[in-house]
Amino acid sequence: MTDEEYMELALQVAQATKGQTSPNPVVGAAVVKNGRLLGVAAHLKAGEAHAEVNALTMAGEEAKGATIYVTLEPCSHYGKTPPCADLIIEKQIKRAVVATKDPNPEVAGNGIKKLEEAGIEVTFGVLKDEADWLNRHFFHYINTGLPYVTLKTASSLDGKTATTLKESQWITGPDAREDGHRLRHQNDAILVGSGTVLSDDPSLTVRLPNGGLSPCRVILDTHLKTSPEAKMLEDHQAPVWIICGKDADQEKREALRYKGAVILPTSRTHIDIHEVLSILGEKGITSLYVEGGSSVHGSFLEEKAFQEIVCYVAPKLIGGVNAPPVIGGEGFAHMEDTVDLEIVSTEHVGKDLKITALPRKKERYTCLQE
Amino acid sequence: MTDEEYMELALQVAQATKGQTSPNPVVGAAVVKNGRLLGVAAHLKAGEAHAEVNALTMAGEEAKGATIYVTLEPCSHYGKTPPCADLIIEKQIKRAVVATKDPNPEVAGNGIKKLEEAGIEVTFGVLKDEADWLNRHFFHYINTGLPYVTLKTASSLDGKTATTLKESQWITGPDAREDGHRLRHQNDAILVGSGTVLSDDPSLTVRLPNGGLSPCRVILDTHLKTSPEAKMLEDHQAPVWIICGKDADQEKREALRYKGAVILPTSRTHIDIHEVLSILGEKGITSLYVEGGSSVHGSFLEEKAFQEIVCYVAPKLIGGVNAPPVIGGEGFAHMEDTVDLEIVSTEHVGKDLKITALPRKKERYTCLQE
Repeated sequence: MTDEEYMELALQVAQATKGQTSPNPVVGAAVVKNGRLLGVAAHLKAGEAHAEVNALTMAGEEAKGATIYVTLEPCSHYGKTPPCADLIIEKQIKRAVVATKDPNPEVAGNGIKKLEEAGIEVTFGVLKDEADWLNRHFFHYINTGLPYVTLKTASSLDGKTATTLKESQWITGPDAREDGHRLRHQNDAILVGSGTVLSDDPSLTVRLPNGGLSPCRVILDTHLKTSPEAKMLEDHQAPVWIICGKDADQEKREALRYKGAVILPTSRTHIDIHEVLSILGEKGITSLYVEGGSSVHGSFLEEKAFQEIVCYVAPKLIGGVNAPPVIGGEGFAHMEDTVDLEIVSTEHVGKDLKITALPRKKERYTCLQE
Repeated sequence: MTDEEYMELALQVAQATKGQTSPNPVVGAAVVKNGRLLGVAAHLKAGEAHAEVNALTMAGEEAKGATIYVTLEPCSHYGKTPPCADLIIEKQIKRAVVATKDPNPEVAGNGIKKLEEAGIEVTFGVLKDEADWLNRHFFHYINTGLPYVTLKTASSLDGKTATTLKESQWITGPDAREDGHRLRHQNDAILVGSGTVLSDDPSLTVRLPNGGLSPCRVILDTHLKTSPEAKMLEDHQAPVWIICGKDADQEKREALRYKGAVILPTSRTHIDIHEVLSILGEKGITSLYVEGGSSVHGSFLEEKAFQEIVCYVAPKLIGGVNAPPVIGGEGFAHMEDTVDLEIVSTEHVGKDLKITALPRKKERYTCLQE
C-alpha cells in the first residue's frame, strides 16, 4: 500500500469521529512496518488520548522502527495530555507521514520540528487538501475565534420552502432528512430563528439509526417570543441558548431561565449576526449549523457571515410568486453584491440533490477580516 | 465491435442532426460486413433521403449480405421518398438491427414486418431507451398532435432570477448560455411572454460558434402589448407568431402584421395554455422551448403542460423575499398538487449546474390525457 492509501485510511477513521472531539480537531493515525498494519486509531474525545497514543498503544513493542501516518501534525506541547511528538520519539518510530500542520499557535510546525530534530524522517503534505477539509471547522475557529458557519437549506427545485398556503411537509425525502441529522451531529451548535420555533416547535436534536450527539440549540429571538412551553425546553437533550436584544423583557428572561434556557442578550436592541458569532465563539462553539428559516438565512447571507452552504434540493416544482423563498430577508439590490459560490460537490441523497458550496475567495477573505 | 457499439455510433450521428430534420425524427444508420464499416449516415432534412438510403448508397455494391443498424424502424410507406424497407430488401441486406419502433401509424411495426417477411433477420431493441429519448419530441408529437414542451429556467442557487432591483445580467455564465442556444436550435419554436419582450427586447435567435437554425418565435401577449418596433420584428431571422386574446385590438393586430408578425387569436379573452399547444400543434410545431419569464413558467407549471424542464443553476446567492422567483404565477396552494419530478441528469456546464428533469409518471399521464 502507498503512503496515500495509509493516509486515506487514517482520514476515514478520523472522519468517523467528526462531531465527537470538539473543541479538538478530528485526527486519525496508522502505524505500519514492513507492509503490515500494526495500529490504527483516532482521537475519540477531548481530554482523552490522542490518535497517535491510541495507535502506538495498539502497536505495542513492534512500533520500534515503524512508520506512523497522522492526519494532523503531532502536538508538541503539554495540554490535557503529554506531547505526542515526545511519545513518537520515545517509541523509536523511524518515519512520520503528516498530512497537514496544526494551526494551533502552540503547535504550528513545532511538532514536526521536534520529530526532525530527533532524527525521524518526516514526509509532509500527503493528502493535505483532504485533511484540511476534514478539519475546516477547527482550523477556522483556531484562526478567527469564531464558529465555522454552515447554512443548510431544503427547497424545491424552484427554490421554494412551502406552498402559497405555507404547507411545507415534506419537501425533501427521508434520506436527505437523515443526512441533515448527520450534519447536526457534526456541529457544536444548531441555530434557528424564533419564527421557526413558533411555527414548527422543533426539537433540533439528532435522531440517527445509531444515535448521535445533539448540538447546543441556539435561538435568535430579539424580543423573546419563544414560549417557555417550547418542546426544546422540555426534553433536556441539549442546552438551549436564546440570544435576544438588549431590551428584551426581564420577566420573559426569567420565565425562560426557569425552564433551563441560557439567555444571552446582545449589546444592541436588534441582533447583529457578527456579534452573535463573537458570543458563540467566546463560549467555545467552533461550528454552527444554521437551519433557518428563510429570514435568518437572509441575515447570514447579507452579512456574508458563513463559510459553507449545504442545499438539499427536492425534485419538485411549487411555483408561485408568493410562495416562501428558501433565502428571504432584504436580499441584495445589485448583482455585484451577490455572493458567488464554488460548488464543491453535487450528490444524490435518495431522490434529492445535495449541493455543497463555499463562498468564493473574495467573500471568504471578507469573512476572515471581520 | 458489438451491436451496441455500432448502434451507439448510429445514435451519435443522429444526435448531431437534432434540430434540422423536423417535422421528421432524427435517424442514424450504419452498414457493417465482416467487421468493416461500409456506410454510416443520417437523415439530414425533411423531404430528403432517409438515413438508410444515405448509408446504403455509401456502402454501394458491398451492401449485399451486410448488417444494417438503424436507430428507428425503417419506413414501409411511400412518403416524400420510397419505403426504406424495400430498399433494404432490394440491396440484399442479411440482418437488420433496429433500436426502436416508429410510432407513426403508417409504419408502427410494418417496416420490421416487411423485412422479416423478406427473410431478413431482425434484431429489435438494441439501445431502445437511448433511441426513444433521442426522438422524444417526435414521438410525443406523433402520439398527441401537441408539441413536446421543454421549460428552461436560469436562476441562482436560491431560485432567484434577479436582484430586488431586478438586475438580472448575468446570472449564468457563457457556457450555460451557449448550451441554451443549442436547445433553441433543437426545438421548432421558442416561447416567451410579452413581459419578457417588453423588458428585454430579445432576439431569441440561435447564436452558436458554427451557426444554427433559429426556431419560430412565439409570444404570449393577451392584449398585444408587443411594440411593432421590437427587435424580433426587424431582424427577419425567423417567423414571429403572436398569440393574443380574442378581443385584442384590431389596429394593434394590423400594425404588428404590417411588420411581418403572424397574429394568432385564441377563442377566449384570456390565453389558455392548452389552447396554445393545440394551435401550435396544428401548425406543425413538434417541439416548444419555453424560456419564460417567471409568470409564463408559472402558467405552464399550474396547467402541468410540459414534458421536461432544464434548469441552469448558477453558483450564486441573491436572497430577498421580494427578489423575483424563477417560477412565479399563482403557484400551488397544497403540497399534494405540486409537481414531482424525476431528475434525469445533473451536469456541470462551465461554472453552472444543468439539471434536466421530467414530471413523474402521474403528471406525464395527466398531460397525455388532456
